[in-house]
Amino acid sequence: MRAEIVSIGDELLKGQRVNTNAAFIAGALAGIGVPVGRIVACSDVEHEMVSVFTESLDRADIVLVTGGLGPTRDDRTRKATQQLLHRGLELSEEAYENLAARMKNRSLELSDALRDQAMVIEGSHVIPNTKGTAAGMIIRCGERFDNRYLVLMPGVPSEMQAMMKLTVIPYFALLSNSVIRHTPIKTLGIGESTLAEMIVDIEDQLPEGTSLAYLPHTAGVNLMISTIGRNQENVDRDNRSIVDAIVQKAGKFVYATSEVTLEETIGQMLIEAGMTVAVAESCTGGLVASRLTDVSGSSLYFLQGFVVYSNQAKQRTLGVQEELIESFGAVSEEVARAMATGCLEKSGADLALATTGIAGPLGGSPEKPVGMLCLAIANKISKTVLSKTLFMQGDRERNKFRFSEAALIEIWECLRVV
Amino acid sequence: MRAEIVSIGDELLKGQRVNTNAAFIAGALAGIGVPVGRIVACSDVEHEMVSVFTESLDRADIVLVTGGLGPTRDDRTRKATQQLLHRGLELSEEAYENLAARMKNRSLELSDALRDQAMVIEGSHVIPNTKGTAAGMIIRCGERFDNRYLVLMPGVPSEMQAMMKLTVIPYFALLSNSVIRHTPIKTLGIGESTLAEMIVDIEDQLPEGTSLAYLPHTAGVNLMISTIGRNQENVDRDNRSIVDAIVQKAGKFVYATSEVTLEETIGQMLIEAGMTVAVAESCTGGLVASRLTDVSGSSLYFLQGFVVYSNQAKQRTLGVQEELIESFGAVSEEVARAMATGCLEKSGADLALATTGIAGPLGGSPEKPVGMLCLAIANKISKTVLSKTLFMQGDRERNKFRFSEAALIEIWECLRVV
Repeated sequence: MRAEIVSIGDELLKGQRVNTNAAFIAGALAGIGVPVGRIVACSDVEHEMVSVFTESLDRADIVLVTGGLGPTRDDRTRKATQQLLHRGLELSEEAYENLAARMKNRSLELSDALRDQAMVIEGSHVIPNTKGTAAGMIIRCGERFDNRYLVLMPGVPSEMQAMMKLTVIPYFALLSNSVIRHTPIKTLGIGESTLAEMIVDIEDQLPEGTSLAYLPHTAGVNLMISTIGRNQENVDRDNRSIVDAIVQKAGKFVYATSEVTLEETIGQMLIEAGMTVAVAESCTGGLVASRLTDVSGSSLYFLQGFVVYSNQAKQRTLGVQEELIESFGAVSEEVARAMATGCLEKSGADLALATTGIAGPLGGSPEKPVGMLCLAIANKISKTVLSKTLFMQGDRERNKFRFSEAALIEIWECLRVV
Repeated sequence: MRAEIVSIGDELLKGQRVNTNAAFIAGALAGIGVPVGRIVACSDVEHEMVSVFTESLDRADIVLVTGGLGPTRDDRTRKATQQLLHRGLELSEEAYENLAARMKNRSLELSDALRDQAMVIEGSHVIPNTKGTAAGMIIRCGERFDNRYLVLMPGVPSEMQAMMKLTVIPYFALLSNSVIRHTPIKTLGIGESTLAEMIVDIEDQLPEGTSLAYLPHTAGVNLMISTIGRNQENVDRDNRSIVDAIVQKAGKFVYATSEVTLEETIGQMLIEAGMTVAVAESCTGGLVASRLTDVSGSSLYFLQGFVVYSNQAKQRTLGVQEELIESFGAVSEEVARAMATGCLEKSGADLALATTGIAGPLGGSPEKPVGMLCLAIANKISKTVLSKTLFMQGDRERNKFRFSEAALIEIWECLRVV
């Protein structure tokens, strides 16, 4: 079984809304082994919808449509479906009762416009709407369309998501009969082409049903290994074998083989090592602290952060010596090391990371260009202070984010050898 | 001129990535008066791409494609285009020099796989890639396709966005022969429906060619006033008249009528007032400092930040008294005020802002629920400390962002009365 997704709405075509619904539906279908062939966004003009539905029903066994089921006049999905299938509307008792109960709960009148929301295409399997008023429908399209399925849902994300989980996915999981497994491989510090060269042999010999996708991000690339088949055991085995083979080749760049973030990985490592961390930031301006504390429960290991933007703040708050800044400049490994040491002392943490650099666009020089970052990490247990200098290219926003990414990688690498 | 957008990539069809690129492109095209008819996401299988390109070129004058231009083997957009148009590849000198310069800056070798990134479809207008390696292309498709345009860009958002801004939009704006003017009106602290009521008279009498869009954001709503026409002078006049009328009605909620951020607005106000700022953050974890220092030149007014996550850090670093935390709890206006006062003293700044709250999902109670935020702002010049408590609803990420937004609004409001 193959599916296509059709998203109705002018706000998508004008760029006023990002199509998160399609991603949700595609992800849910992937979970039951139903691949999606295309995702089409189109306007809510009736003849355009009829064309798009017809084309999609020619290619796919299931066409899932969101949008255009609301009570306002620009919601025309049912009209287009009537025209496509030459069918009338009928009142769904089930949907009507749901509507009446919702209105009663809010002490509201059931207006005619709202009653319309319980009208469905003749012969539909009704999808109850547990979060709103418009009923959804699963429609078998008759012989003209090889009895393929058209699924109509509202465009409001919470309503559509509840319909997918409670009705649509169980309905098609029963019919589809295949299993699928996705495993992410999250890497850092390696580019797409270098990683591709490293694992070319594995990619050349993927088992049938297994595919590999590259998902680049700011500080490297993630892989997604997907396996589809009929037998759960074989699917799991094939998927696992490829994941293991890649980890064996590229393991030193891999920080996770599940859906966790780098921040969460670091948090887990700190908890396991029983260690605490603090940060002293100049060029990253608080972004490293903010990212570390994005993790729920980070108060277990994150003690505090110092955003020491000015030279005075570096001196007064962290005890960095004025002569050091004068001799080497604020952007130097020497100052980064002094910041890390001061941060370790002031915070009482086991690890202290410091950043100083030039995010730009101003402040660069030939010796210290925009994109230069000095990092230092002080370790109370091993009594060491390590430092390094990196150079990045980008605008201020990108540099700052990549600086913070480099800082997190530094903490991650430090914890790997604990 | 009508456009369609084609987004290539299995990660879209598997729901692993949301199609933000299409929304960006659609929004940019709307800005030059080019409507988008459809947005199609499809896989990177060559025959599928050839079908999709052919269908889109039948319907639209411009087809903009993202994805499938990288160096790995699952990047097949150029191959599909060659097959579609029966054209070969040629080396673009311009793209090659860009590549060579990028590699040299990073002291990297120019591998064969990378050199491929400078190969373009014969007869292309090359789109320089200022953020990465793969060259983009604007291709006139020949008589078979009525000389319509195929635009190929990489799927990495930063690379695609730079290409759109620097090359693609100017290119098609010239062809479309109309002038357009957009003016944003950026507001804070007012909801969409309240603002709509306030300006209903203006909205009812918009001049021909002028439209008004509501763009809701986390802390309120922005307006975009767009005017399109043939004559620059008339377009400017009509646009200005509506902007002025709205500012007159809703001025106290407006912080800008140009594309500046709230962070930049605050920076400008601080510079004009000759004042400096520092922040003490608990629940926002460094995000307020990070946002303030997103602005180039922020070292002129931002002195330092304290991320005091633990109670010990609040006491040791800012001198918050232990009894205060014991009596009122760490999340209280009393503690926020003590943090602000301590921050003012330690930093030497003119203004000090403090945040303490519960971002969640853990740590809430009936009296102090998840989403509760206590803010305080201490002012050295007026010798005042103001505080307030706010309640928000959302997950951790959303709460943290809204907390930081509330903190920035607090600084903005304090500076308005200076």
